[in-house]
Amino acid sequence: MSLLVKKYGGTSVSTISRIKKIADDISTEVRKNNKIVVVLSAMGKTTDQLVSMANKSSKSPNLRDYDLLVSSGEQISISLLSMILNDNSIAAISLTGWQAGILTNEDHSKARILNISTNKIKNILLKNSVVIIAGFQGINKNGDITTLGRGGSDTSAVALAAALKAKECQIFTDVDGVYTTDPKYCNNARKLDSLTYEEMLELSGLGSKVLQLRSVEFASKYNVPIRVLHAHQNGSGTLIKKEEKKMEDALISGIAFTKNESEIMIKGVKDRPGVAAKILGPIGDSNIEVDMIVQNVGSDGLADFTFTVSRSDFKKAIQVIEKNKKIMGYDSINSTKNIVKLSLVGVGMRSHAGIAGKMFKCLARKQINIRMISTSEIKISVVIEQKNLELAVQALHNEFKLDKNR
Amino acid sequence: MSLLVKKYGGTSVSTISRIKKIADDISTEVRKNNKIVVVLSAMGKTTDQLVSMANKSSKSPNLRDYDLLVSSGEQISISLLSMILNDNSIAAISLTGWQAGILTNEDHSKARILNISTNKIKNILLKNSVVIIAGFQGINKNGDITTLGRGGSDTSAVALAAALKAKECQIFTDVDGVYTTDPKYCNNARKLDSLTYEEMLELSGLGSKVLQLRSVEFASKYNVPIRVLHAHQNGSGTLIKKEEKKMEDALISGIAFTKNESEIMIKGVKDRPGVAAKILGPIGDSNIEVDMIVQNVGSDGLADFTFTVSRSDFKKAIQVIEKNKKIMGYDSINSTKNIVKLSLVGVGMRSHAGIAGKMFKCLARKQINIRMISTSEIKISVVIEQKNLELAVQALHNEFKLDKNR
Repeated sequence: MSLLVKKYGGTSVSTISRIKKIADDISTEVRKNNKIVVVLSAMGKTTDQLVSMANKSSKSPNLRDYDLLVSSGEQISISLLSMILNDNSIAAISLTGWQAGILTNEDHSKARILNISTNKIKNILLKNSVVIIAGFQGINKNGDITTLGRGGSDTSAVALAAALKAKECQIFTDVDGVYTTDPKYCNNARKLDSLTYEEMLELSGLGSKVLQLRSVEFASKYNVPIRVLHAHQNGSGTLIKKEEKKMEDALISGIAFTKNESEIMIKGVKDRPGVAAKILGPIGDSNIEVDMIVQNVGSDGLADFTFTVSRSDFKKAIQVIEKNKKIMGYDSINSTKNIVKLSLVGVGMRSHAGIAGKMFKCLARKQINIRMISTSEIKISVVIEQKNLELAVQALHNEFKLDKNR
Repeated sequence: MSLLVKKYGGTSVSTISRIKKIADDISTEVRKNNKIVVVLSAMGKTTDQLVSMANKSSKSPNLRDYDLLVSSGEQISISLLSMILNDNSIAAISLTGWQAGILTNEDHSKARILNISTNKIKNILLKNSVVIIAGFQGINKNGDITTLGRGGSDTSAVALAAALKAKECQIFTDVDGVYTTDPKYCNNARKLDSLTYEEMLELSGLGSKVLQLRSVEFASKYNVPIRVLHAHQNGSGTLIKKEEKKMEDALISGIAFTKNESEIMIKGVKDRPGVAAKILGPIGDSNIEVDMIVQNVGSDGLADFTFTVSRSDFKKAIQVIEKNKKIMGYDSINSTKNIVKLSLVGVGMRSHAGIAGKMFKCLARKQINIRMISTSEIKISVVIEQKNLELAVQALHNEFKLDKNR
């Protein structure tokens, strides 16, 4: 007998017949004598529709009201699943975030979970009943409903698994696991059997949109094994867990990339303390998020300051920089709109030298120019032109033999 | 400065632009320095849609889940109104039933309000903020969400008005008040300025579907004045309040009727104790509701037992009676499918004799046959053939001069 937390996303519960399919899967688990806690997102596009109603009502919706509004979506999905299970003679109790005792801070629309009072859930499990909990939501100390931000249901599930000391937190989604890279860009992309929290953080932060970043951080902190599974296909999925000795044999776990980025180089900046702040200050004030940052100092004491921004912010960023030329103190701007960031990720990098060299050589052989480089302990990122993305992914995937089981 | 409770039904909040219209009206009241508590139903057909989802999920939905599901509707409407008010610089706080402290019994899907802890609401009002409360819902002592049954938002509003000692409970709807009879059946039907709780109970119980019966009982018990108003038209509506001395001058307040009824006469029943129970027992066991009941005893010691049922139950009722002929012990059945019940209602009846006689004479003049009669202190009901309904309503409306102000 194991305690399992099973989280289903919006696509998996988009219609009543899909919810019935999930109910069948849960019934099977219950008959295996497993204790089950289910965490659900809202049905299909429900949350989007609620957000659109908020935006039609107000230019900047009051966030307390916003949370009350959008939290109604999961209330619908959990009660329907509970009805269906009870109809099939599987005892089930549906709980909203506040009923489940999920206490958050007061940061409406992007609240953080502070504590989960698990007594109620444990008592229901003791009666051999399935507990179905609304993801994405909680309550703050004032008794107001809060939400955890988009994709927050993953975090709800992991937090519940941690608080209940569940054997595994299973995240059901519309893919059958985490891949070495996006199969759309590489025909021999391979599903990984397992990877570490750190690898998943780098992969998910860089564009493999399987899991919400915050939920992986949470799982890492409390050492909750997460298994990513397909909601409507059989398979063992991908297990995300803490690093084990033997994992070090593997060099690279995957190739991630973010498209829709732009590169801006500010040339001829004086190389002195405070210059980065002078440049990034006005950009941050304009709500533009900067991703990679590189600075080269020339022999003349002038530096080139290069960074990437989301392509949708490109035009605005250029305007801000031109407007602040005096404050920033530069010679000229050199920008490229269509670039991508591509990253090799793998905990094995820590103990293996030469990965970066191998990567750069591989790209050079394919005549792909590297515009920026940044590295972390388990990741090497390069910025290249968008037109080279597919070629680069395929070449690196072959170079590091990611199609072979590690 | 007055404390007003304002309740808006589903039609009044069916679109965001209608909710904005309501927000304007509330803003006007706030600028008059009135303290406002708003009670909302769910938007338009939302509750119907949620109920339909429940029925698609389960043949007999678990009622705890059902309540959690359908209560999401008001959560949406209250948060949107609150957003709009806050956007217009009118401070407002939206509260679900449980947040507002509405404690009910455990009778899911038709719960009764036991108590309202008004501290939270009063504190918000003290800060000159509008309080917007989800109608139709509450919480039971186990922390489960309950609903009050269809139309329960009227009851929520009246209960809140009673608990907060509001000056008036205003029910905004799609009619501009309570009429002497249905204007569709009588061209000179007149809007009443006021009537008593008792009169409204008889009128609303008999088919004037302006207010939920239970809310009027509640208002009567706690002496809460209710004003029925049109949501999108100006006017003073109809005030429903406790009986005052001068009201006795008026004989009749209105003519109510229920269509879609059927009449069943069971002939030749032995006139002895327990016979009514023997007949009504099997009918009640089949979930058929009986409305009017009349029994005539003949000189031969045999009685004719006549009653009305909803037309949708007619066929089933006949089957039950035929199946139980031996137990019921009768000679024959005589049934008429298409009948209606028509009632004169008025507290003035108590102190005025001869109303019944006047009514019967009026119908006789129009050649309308009366099939059954039943009377209460402030009501005389007759059963007539459906084809005579319009003629009877118009004739009685003229006879009792209901088009004239009383």
